[in-house]
Amino acid sequence: MGDLLALIERQRAGWTLEADFYLDAGVAAAENDAIWHRRWLFAAHGCELAVTGAFVTLSIAGEPVVVVRGRDGVARAFANVCRHRGSRICTAASGRVHRLVCPYHAWSYDLDGRLLSDVSGHGGQAETLGLRPYATHEVGGLVFVSLADRPEDIAPLDRAFAPQLAPQGLTRARIAARASYRVEANWKVVFENNRECFHCPVAHREYIRANYDVHLTDPRRAEEIDARTAAEAKRWAELGLGAPSLVSDMTSEWYRINRTPLVPGFVTESLDGKPVAPVMGDYPEHDVGTLRVTVFPNFWMHGSGDHAVTTRLLPDGTGATRVDVAWLVDAAAEEGRDYRVEALQPFWQLTSEQDWTICENVQAGLRSRAYAPGPLERVKERNVAQFIAWYLGLMRANRA
Amino acid sequence: MGDLLALIERQRAGWTLEADFYLDAGVAAAENDAIWHRRWLFAAHGCELAVTGAFVTLSIAGEPVVVVRGRDGVARAFANVCRHRGSRICTAASGRVHRLVCPYHAWSYDLDGRLLSDVSGHGGQAETLGLRPYATHEVGGLVFVSLADRPEDIAPLDRAFAPQLAPQGLTRARIAARASYRVEANWKVVFENNRECFHCPVAHREYIRANYDVHLTDPRRAEEIDARTAAEAKRWAELGLGAPSLVSDMTSEWYRINRTPLVPGFVTESLDGKPVAPVMGDYPEHDVGTLRVTVFPNFWMHGSGDHAVTTRLLPDGTGATRVDVAWLVDAAAEEGRDYRVEALQPFWQLTSEQDWTICENVQAGLRSRAYAPGPLERVKERNVAQFIAWYLGLMRANRA
Amino acid sequence: MGDLLALIERQRAGWTLEADFYLDAGVAAAENDAIWHRRWLFAAHGCELAVTGAFVTLSIAGEPVVVVRGRDGVARAFANVCRHRGSRICTAASGRVHRLVCPYHAWSYDLDGRLLSDVSGHGGQAETLGLRPYATHEVGGLVFVSLADRPEDIAPLDRAFAPQLAPQGLTRARIAARASYRVEANWKVVFENNRECFHCPVAHREYIRANYDVHLTDPRRAEEIDARTAAEAKRWAELGLGAPSLVSDMTSEWYRINRTPLVPGFVTESLDGKPVAPVMGDYPEHDVGTLRVTVFPNFWMHGSGDHAVTTRLLPDGTGATRVDVAWLVDAAAEEGRDYRVEALQPFWQLTSEQDWTICENVQAGLRSRAYAPGPLERVKERNVAQFIAWYLGLMRANRA
Repeated sequence: MGDLLALIERQRAGWTLEADFYLDAGVAAAENDAIWHRRWLFAAHGCELAVTGAFVTLSIAGEPVVVVRGRDGVARAFANVCRHRGSRICTAASGRVHRLVCPYHAWSYDLDGRLLSDVSGHGGQAETLGLRPYATHEVGGLVFVSLADRPEDIAPLDRAFAPQLAPQGLTRARIAARASYRVEANWKVVFENNRECFHCPVAHREYIRANYDVHLTDPRRAEEIDARTAAEAKRWAELGLGAPSLVSDMTSEWYRINRTPLVPGFVTESLDGKPVAPVMGDYPEHDVGTLRVTVFPNFWMHGSGDHAVTTRLLPDGTGATRVDVAWLVDAAAEEGRDYRVEALQPFWQLTSEQDWTICENVQAGLRSRAYAPGPLERVKERNVAQFIAWYLGLMRANRA
Repeated sequence: MGDLLALIERQRAGWTLEADFYLDAGVAAAENDAIWHRRWLFAAHGCELAVTGAFVTLSIAGEPVVVVRGRDGVARAFANVCRHRGSRICTAASGRVHRLVCPYHAWSYDLDGRLLSDVSGHGGQAETLGLRPYATHEVGGLVFVSLADRPEDIAPLDRAFAPQLAPQGLTRARIAARASYRVEANWKVVFENNRECFHCPVAHREYIRANYDVHLTDPRRAEEIDARTAAEAKRWAELGLGAPSLVSDMTSEWYRINRTPLVPGFVTESLDGKPVAPVMGDYPEHDVGTLRVTVFPNFWMHGSGDHAVTTRLLPDGTGATRVDVAWLVDAAAEEGRDYRVEALQPFWQLTSEQDWTICENVQAGLRSRAYAPGPLERVKERNVAQFIAWYLGLMRANRA
Repeated sequence: MGDLLALIERQRAGWTLEADFYLDAGVAAAENDAIWHRRWLFAAHGCELAVTGAFVTLSIAGEPVVVVRGRDGVARAFANVCRHRGSRICTAASGRVHRLVCPYHAWSYDLDGRLLSDVSGHGGQAETLGLRPYATHEVGGLVFVSLADRPEDIAPLDRAFAPQLAPQGLTRARIAARASYRVEANWKVVFENNRECFHCPVAHREYIRANYDVHLTDPRRAEEIDARTAAEAKRWAELGLGAPSLVSDMTSEWYRINRTPLVPGFVTESLDGKPVAPVMGDYPEHDVGTLRVTVFPNFWMHGSGDHAVTTRLLPDGTGATRVDVAWLVDAAAEEGRDYRVEALQPFWQLTSEQDWTICENVQAGLRSRAYAPGPLERVKERNVAQFIAWYLGLMRANRA
């Protein structure tokens, strides 16, 4: 596909991508090869797979996948496709099973994917008819899957995430609320939107009251921010939480994890800054700033002291993205007694939905012949440029 | 289209088809040439066209067709397209007309397709502007249509069907109930599902109580089945109904008709086995087993002593099938007095809908890169293999 | 695209177009180049842009466009696409703004399209980052837009329209009612339907009671029509309205404007012929016949003495057309006091909707392999032939 290579090579650094990257079905197919069917993707929360046989299903750029907790406690992913007639095996979004049993002719697979049924009356060999396995890695309560035959080394991510995620206690959390969206925008529009807060004063009134992101470049608030950072550095050192970081840059090419102070008055990301659930995980108190996680191409998270909000992206055709947002609290917290969903959800529900509207407006504009790449703000949109560079690097490598 | 020929030739006997056969738009276009716009298709029940001018419309793989009863009593099919500006002529699903009159400029055609309007003010000749006729054949109350210029010889089907269908009395039946579905699965998935009862114990609790299909390979029931067959053979000979047959194999490459005993206690295919309507046609009594009819690529029927259930398939794009199920009773039967729809429908409505769910699960799995052809059960799925062989033969012949 | 040229060249004069013209995505793309992204199109009513900053948005064959009234009173059209990240700028169907402000990062443009924001932190130059302007022309209350770099000369249309439109008073009218439709038919089917009244006796009972169109070729009404025309000629001369014309032919290749007498008893196009609003514009009285305007490819209007009805077409993919119908009355008229929408709308709402049904029936027939071009009536469908000739001329020129 010489055209795609030409498209990649003529891309101007510091400008937005050409429209074809967001609209063209051929580009989307190349992205499946280079990214969606190759890279590590956030698939599920470990706490959704708390018990043996618990499963979650998802569709990764058209590939039906089931992630299931094995008898040995290991989460494993498989193609959710029977080797007999091709039926989906698990038809629910989640559930619990003893074995993976196809609803068509009851071909049965063990939780490790091995075919258990007697197929001597058929033409094939049972040992070659197990479920197609996919690489799976769980760290700090997050389950990642890769559809690649030889996936990227995930050890560096594991080393960075394991200690930082530990106090958040996602492994012993529960999902208190969910919201799912079909955003009419290409997944890159959605992730680019997430990688800058230049738009926050225009679009996110609630978010900027709690967070410093957009104020970092405001000289009038420099003193306040410096003082806050110094105070939090001291306090967090005592709490054993590591140094605060206001920098939202990626710490590797494709992931980052860092803890950020909130604006004074906000001990959690809620509309009024007050706690919305009991302290979760191993946190010593509510006020621990926010633990921010980003994994290209499909995950981000903000963890407060009392809850965490995760966002998972999955492409739904070239022009749309399926987005699943989850709110997690400590497994011991009880709705009604310890938290109310109406207090827990609004902060990130509002912020998220404000972003989906923006993304749909961008997608509508990208379809125009009048669209041309525009210049990114050198500082405030530097992380959009970094995302684009990461993306182009993968697309180029896949073509070469 | 060398690719399709390669796809056909590398197909392994006794295994399911490769995914492209169910997903690819090019394959679907080739199927239209080889099958949908060429083969004999079930179009309508003769009893829907009981009077002169009664018509039924349908869409055959995108082709709008009207079937109408002529003044001579013959059912005829035409392209439902005006020769003037191209409008559909009959816009209702069914009805009755004196002439076929276009709703745009009232161009009028006789029931035999001849243009009746004065078109001297136009550029064309009236005698060349009749409706495009299609081959039509009616046997035992079933109306078949072929869009081919030179259709397959239907005489062998007629000879097989005419005597066996006669006592069912479909020519003097009425449609007591209908159910229409858009099943999100390729038509071959739907027909393959119909050609084996290997899945019945898993999916069709109601069906297997009444029918022997799935029990034929169960040695524990061999004695019961042999006894039942012998008893029914004797009784049916006395009733003049022909020999019972438990074999569901096709009696020709593309059609079959045979009568099958029901399980004792079931005198008809109803949930409790009790009659749901008066005896229909020329049957001497309720208990006549089931008369089973299959016609590739789009028809099957189960006829009991008191009612018959027909199923018509029509493709609706590559990934979906329009399915129309009809329940027929004797024309003299009156709803409320002689039968209740709530008792008549459930047996086949449940069984059908169970199958549509299965088919949609299969279609979802076929879309996966992880799908690979699977091995068919040599005995229990032999008729699926026969269907695939028939299909591949037609596709190969069309390419050659 | 040699195939399209061959398709154009083999088209037989006096017959309907081949089906590919209405169905093929390649033809539709060529039409965008030759017609939709090149020709003058009716975009909005001037009275919708009555004040500075008033805007209307529309989508022209996929191109998002905003038309806005400038501080100098001039209506201007722009690509509704921000030069920064590509977002739509105006997201409402209509409204009023001081500046055009992007909802993503608040990049702001003056009403003449100039970028006002400081973009020194970005890579580009402000003076090269204005909104993409489109040619705009307003005449007699109708705003036309062309997406061409060098649009057709619109001066001849302006000269023909300005004096004739003046008394209708569209510049100081208000939109009393609207109806919007997505008609499942190619835009050419919709316009061809509009260019002949041969179908009116079959489809438009209400319309033909008020209008002579279809009766012109009826020798039994020749005397009545001659008398009516003579009487109206005399009366209109006294009123300064110009000569009556019953000819619906185009006065140029792509537009026409002429005034037509109504049937006696009808002083306006209402169901009973009685006024439905106060006299509008500069008309001296209600009974002024109908002022008829046609502009290829997307506009027609019937103006009575008390109201006008405009129709705007915009393609919505190959097989569908977005149609917006508006009913205009004098700006001084007040709903409830001076007019009732229930009396104003039915005449053209019924007529329009009757036509959309026809058009959808035609589109359904065009999809059939059995469709073949049909012969047009030499007199009654001559204007369909003229439309087709205009269309083919543009398509041919675009290919050459």
